[in-house]
Amino acid sequence: MSNLKTILSLLEGAELKNCPSPESIEIEKVLPLTGKNAKFISFVSSKAFVNDAKASEAAAILVTPEIAELIADKTLIVVPQVELALSTVLLHFSPLKKPDGKIASNAVIHPTAKIGENTSIGNFVTIGEGSVIGKNCLISDGVKIDNDVVIGDESRIGMNCAFYHGTRIGNRFTVFANSTFGGDGFGFVFANGKHNKLPQVGRVIIGDDVEVGANCTVDRGAITDTTIGNGCKFDNMVHIAHNCKVGNHVVIAGQSGLAGSVTLGDYVIIGGACAISDHLTLVEGTIIAGGTSLRTSPKAKDVYIGWDLGLNFPDFQKYRVNIKNIVVLNKWIKRIKDVEKKLGIDLPDPS
Amino acid sequence: MSNLKTILSLLEGAELKNCPSPESIEIEKVLPLTGKNAKFISFVSSKAFVNDAKASEAAAILVTPEIAELIADKTLIVVPQVELALSTVLLHFSPLKKPDGKIASNAVIHPTAKIGENTSIGNFVTIGEGSVIGKNCLISDGVKIDNDVVIGDESRIGMNCAFYHGTRIGNRFTVFANSTFGGDGFGFVFANGKHNKLPQVGRVIIGDDVEVGANCTVDRGAITDTTIGNGCKFDNMVHIAHNCKVGNHVVIAGQSGLAGSVTLGDYVIIGGACAISDHLTLVEGTIIAGGTSLRTSPKAKDVYIGWDLGLNFPDFQKYRVNIKNIVVLNKWIKRIKDVEKKLGIDLPDPS
Amino acid sequence: MSNLKTILSLLEGAELKNCPSPESIEIEKVLPLTGKNAKFISFVSSKAFVNDAKASEAAAILVTPEIAELIADKTLIVVPQVELALSTVLLHFSPLKKPDGKIASNAVIHPTAKIGENTSIGNFVTIGEGSVIGKNCLISDGVKIDNDVVIGDESRIGMNCAFYHGTRIGNRFTVFANSTFGGDGFGFVFANGKHNKLPQVGRVIIGDDVEVGANCTVDRGAITDTTIGNGCKFDNMVHIAHNCKVGNHVVIAGQSGLAGSVTLGDYVIIGGACAISDHLTLVEGTIIAGGTSLRTSPKAKDVYIGWDLGLNFPDFQKYRVNIKNIVVLNKWIKRIKDVEKKLGIDLPDPS
Repeated sequence: MSNLKTILSLLEGAELKNCPSPESIEIEKVLPLTGKNAKFISFVSSKAFVNDAKASEAAAILVTPEIAELIADKTLIVVPQVELALSTVLLHFSPLKKPDGKIASNAVIHPTAKIGENTSIGNFVTIGEGSVIGKNCLISDGVKIDNDVVIGDESRIGMNCAFYHGTRIGNRFTVFANSTFGGDGFGFVFANGKHNKLPQVGRVIIGDDVEVGANCTVDRGAITDTTIGNGCKFDNMVHIAHNCKVGNHVVIAGQSGLAGSVTLGDYVIIGGACAISDHLTLVEGTIIAGGTSLRTSPKAKDVYIGWDLGLNFPDFQKYRVNIKNIVVLNKWIKRIKDVEKKLGIDLPDPS
Repeated sequence: MSNLKTILSLLEGAELKNCPSPESIEIEKVLPLTGKNAKFISFVSSKAFVNDAKASEAAAILVTPEIAELIADKTLIVVPQVELALSTVLLHFSPLKKPDGKIASNAVIHPTAKIGENTSIGNFVTIGEGSVIGKNCLISDGVKIDNDVVIGDESRIGMNCAFYHGTRIGNRFTVFANSTFGGDGFGFVFANGKHNKLPQVGRVIIGDDVEVGANCTVDRGAITDTTIGNGCKFDNMVHIAHNCKVGNHVVIAGQSGLAGSVTLGDYVIIGGACAISDHLTLVEGTIIAGGTSLRTSPKAKDVYIGWDLGLNFPDFQKYRVNIKNIVVLNKWIKRIKDVEKKLGIDLPDPS
Repeated sequence: MSNLKTILSLLEGAELKNCPSPESIEIEKVLPLTGKNAKFISFVSSKAFVNDAKASEAAAILVTPEIAELIADKTLIVVPQVELALSTVLLHFSPLKKPDGKIASNAVIHPTAKIGENTSIGNFVTIGEGSVIGKNCLISDGVKIDNDVVIGDESRIGMNCAFYHGTRIGNRFTVFANSTFGGDGFGFVFANGKHNKLPQVGRVIIGDDVEVGANCTVDRGAITDTTIGNGCKFDNMVHIAHNCKVGNHVVIAGQSGLAGSVTLGDYVIIGGACAISDHLTLVEGTIIAGGTSLRTSPKAKDVYIGWDLGLNFPDFQKYRVNIKNIVVLNKWIKRIKDVEKKLGIDLPDPS
């Protein structure tokens, strides 16, 4: 429970509307506009939901100034960016679990490993020779950390994640369960009738403020390192192959993968279920729509979508319109041939 | 070893043909028709295999009444649905491992957690504060269960699976190794040049009789819950993003994923390697063929296949026929231009 | 540190050029041509990098005889196959961690399990009843091995991998973290309004010299076994469904999957993010380009690419050229209709 005055004090630039005594309004949680049976705060970030807002039982609603104009008689918290304010309020009601410096008695920590102040180490964790874990970290149950791994301060490592030797990760790193860092890149040389292993001796280097989902994999570089910049956010089951160079603040949604030696500029966004072929480069700010399988580096910053070359969005809309024409393309071809016949032209089908 | 009379007694509506004394026929296992060197039972569910059945060394063959008409002189077990009978016979010869109520001495179970009667807890398992595990469950080695998780009776949890706080799962749940439930949904707000975390405070709610493969992920909801109905079956590496609402008896094959806030009606079937874009809705009974990347909600129940909009199956067959025409589309376009020239028409190429 | 003479002695058929006293040249590591501040060996396998080689600070460069002709005044190691020599040199500088026969005191090994000579068993490992691990293996922390599993000599099992009962694996097997072997295949029979489990009683059988990446899954067969030949190499997040028959020396790149009962001949190569539909057969030496979703068995050995049927590479190039024509196909159709009109033809659009 928090009263509205307290919540207001957390939100930079927020203004209250239609609420004379915010200290008397108690809030217990955040719910969508349709919430019931609770003293809740809600939010509207699109005009499409203005009517829902008017009908909502919410005790207060986060809105933009523009939307505030459209809603009378409701307690409104007017903020410049609704979702950003929402994230603050959500965190207020659901604070992250805090590390408490407890180290499980069954954890197996090499004597040369260093564990930062106030870092919690869960059950059945192993930490190898020479590894360094920062302060105020949460290392969950079952995490396995090989030799010579560095993980920065205030990091949160999900259950059963595995870190191979040499991996270097910055501060405020978050990863969910069952992800793997620093496994060998996929490199073989075909000779003598078999695929011979090319040893992978690079490392995984990850910047600050990176979040990685569950069941992801980031491979070590072949000779040089696989690098991921600051502020990157990866969803579940994302795969980053060896030698990729990922810039800062890159977003990759679920089940997408980068093949080897892909370079992504800062602020690239890749939707879900995308495949980016090896050695491609996406310049800063490029957006790849979900489901896209890209085989050629796009020439410029744009939104790309589709298969192989990717179309930019306007071309994709035109492509989409023509799907129904492809389905009957053979019949249009017949029409071409009929016209030719009428004109006395007689040609074989092209091949 | 079981004799044929015993097996027959397990199968509802089964009739024996060409076998005067089933109690004298010993069966040791199930094999395909081509099995050798064993006293085995086999099965035919398609007329295409009638000749194989005639040549088979099987001691008895499960068949439909229709197929029984085509095979003489073989011991046949005539059943209404061959595969259903087969599942019963397979289970008879390979019974599931039963829980025995043993709790590994190294398991770390919070004193407030509740473990149901006869539930087995494997080695290196952790169960957090307030979590409740039903009776007759098998919790395999290495499973990690966070705080406030509920798992229903007769559930079978694979090795090294991870369950985040608040996850609620019904009875008779099966999941294979290395799957993750309740990791944060993928939600960020872009502001001040970076992607700011939108805390994910919803839960994962799963019904009864659900089976999930190995290395799957189901994310918690953002504010409301991610929900999965009763009787759903997911293959390996399936990803369910935050806020999805999955109906009952939904099937999703390997490596397919639902982006955020997808709604699936009951009995939806999604093939392998499919990607369903965020906020789409598939109505009851919709079938999405494997490899499909769907970006628009289909209008009605049907079989959809392809990329982006999805084609229904008849249209897809027409599309398929036209692939060879697309390959030479530039040559047909040349033919259009030649015809135009002959008619004195002179136009630039469209763009 | 190794001197060049020692390195030369490791490389079959290598010849030194422009280096009178190799024993006096100390090398500390392998780096790309652009390496700095180190005594390093480098490599050139393509003429495109000859100028970089000339400018490189490398103490010695691995080259083919052909490339050696183009570079004067550099210490060159001329070898028949640069990447194969590179793999030898990399392994020399970064030798694999060796097993030391240590068995972690907290590992839980069933009394009937057999562990080969000099095999290392990590922390929090479990090995079930009747399982057999070969000699000189490295079983990493957190690995879970069920009953009746066989893993051959000199195998290296990554952290937190899980092996279900009955799995059989040959010698020199390598797998990275969080992979799952022998989970149930995905088999259900629809009856009485629900999907009824078809018990999966086959096994996973894997040959010698196989390498599997992180977070992969290989399912057990339904009735017969899922089999993988010798020398196969799978990247991260590869999924092999039940009853697949994978030949020898097959390569499958990241996030690709085989649906049930796929047969792959020897030396098949499947790129990343591919989906191969159930029951397809790819003959020996077939290559499937990355991102391909294949729904029909190709007729012959070739390179296939695309969606559904797959095009061979020459046809794909033609398809690619025509993408821009599809985008304006409706405008070409308009042109066909205008021509018809001019000729007095009046037809409805086909459907």
